[in-house]
Amino acid sequence: MALKLYGFVGSNATFRALASLFEKDLDFEFVKVHMAGREHKTPQFLSRNPFGQVPVLEDGDITVFESRAITQYIARTYADKGTDLMMKDPKKMAIQSVWMEVESQKFDLPSHKLTIELYVNVLRRGQEADEALVAEFETKLADVLDVYELRLKESKYLGGDSFTLVDLHHLPNLHYLMATKVKRLFDARPHVSAWAADIVSRPAWVKVASMLQK
Amino acid sequence: MALKLYGFVGSNATFRALASLFEKDLDFEFVKVHMAGREHKTPQFLSRNPFGQVPVLEDGDITVFESRAITQYIARTYADKGTDLMMKDPKKMAIQSVWMEVESQKFDLPSHKLTIELYVNVLRRGQEADEALVAEFETKLADVLDVYELRLKESKYLGGDSFTLVDLHHLPNLHYLMATKVKRLFDARPHVSAWAADIVSRPAWVKVASMLQK
Ligand SMILES: N[C@@H](CCC(=O)N[C@@H](CS)C(=O)NCC(=O)O)C(=O)O
Ligand SMILES: N[C@@H](CCC(=O)N[C@@H](CS)C(=O)NCC(=O)O)C(=O)O
Repeated sequence: MALKLYGFVGSNATFRALASLFEKDLDFEFVKVHMAGREHKTPQFLSRNPFGQVPVLEDGDITVFESRAITQYIARTYADKGTDLMMKDPKKMAIQSVWMEVESQKFDLPSHKLTIELYVNVLRRGQEADEALVAEFETKLADVLDVYELRLKESKYLGGDSFTLVDLHHLPNLHYLMATKVKRLFDARPHVSAWAADIVSRPAWVKVASMLQK
Repeated sequence: MALKLYGFVGSNATFRALASLFEKDLDFEFVKVHMAGREHKTPQFLSRNPFGQVPVLEDGDITVFESRAITQYIARTYADKGTDLMMKDPKKMAIQSVWMEVESQKFDLPSHKLTIELYVNVLRRGQEADEALVAEFETKLADVLDVYELRLKESKYLGGDSFTLVDLHHLPNLHYLMATKVKRLFDARPHVSAWAADIVSRPAWVKVASMLQK
């Protein structure tokens, strides 16, 4: 088996890479990195990713880190397998690339901060929420979702008329936020909420999410 | 003239788009957006970018926003003009795409926060620095630059053996940080500092920076 993904179950960024492998229906070996034992900070792991983070993908002699670089590598290299995750037409590709940047520049930070605060700290660890921080990032996220609502009124998916990497990149944060009170920000926007329900129910994502149950 | 860039002089993100247009030696019209008059929040401007931000590129009937989507659009669409900004070989492209993500996910946030605090608030507006914030983001930036130092020991540029979008995307923040005390973090790392000196002296970047003098 040529493809190897290093990561751990529960990691947002690992889930992004896994979702793309499942959408493409690829065979791969999932190598669990022992984070508690700080395996990701060993010289051997740092030679794969100098930032000492997961996920890392190995495909023969090619090593790729950063989850969004991994998904793009998979979408391009295995273009003819499974779900088509990239637009081919240059004009459509330009639009897809705008919305890929929007996820990374606008959606990721507030949704990740809210996931850590409300899912990890509150739900998992039973801590008190930092309400000022929650309010700050909820406002930022709501502004982004307002733009998404307009976009999804005219386009079935964020990147265009079919599911692409744009939507896929949202899945891990989206999944965790749906288990928190932030869900109401999605519910309040009919197109956003239909889109969210659609993408979390994709078989590839259901497979990723079911790994959490094991 | 088919190409139109909407932006303003001094804007980090506008500078990123301008650098790519100059590297490609393209003719374009620079449309200055009147930010003080909130022109970027008018319905007309929001129809170009629903987030109401600059830069926006128009190329005939294609509208692209988010600076890194603009640079990628330019690099792909005008591949045969001026500087080659993208690796073509699939393996090299995979590596370039990893380091594009690193700029966006690791370098951008600390360097942008430090630019706002030390360049805009302190140097421009004469305010006191928030030293706790500066210390926090200097530590984050130093960790990133440690990895860059290792990378640049084995590769002339971050994305590979030639200048690409990866290096270009760093230029605006780099330019501003060099005028602040953060410069010492670059100076302390010989490969990083040689790389920084190299890329800020590229004719295309000198042209962008000289717009600030007018
Ligand atoms: N921007 C990176 C983020 C990677 C990341 O934050 N990974 C976490 C797990 S979700 C990790 O390895 N944390 C351990 C550490 O940072 O030491 C990506 O998208 O791959
Ligand atoms: N991620 C965006 C950032 C764009 C951005 O922050 N633009 C600023 C100027 S540098 C702006 O338009 N600010 C006005 C506003 O946000 O209202 C990009 O790279 O294009």
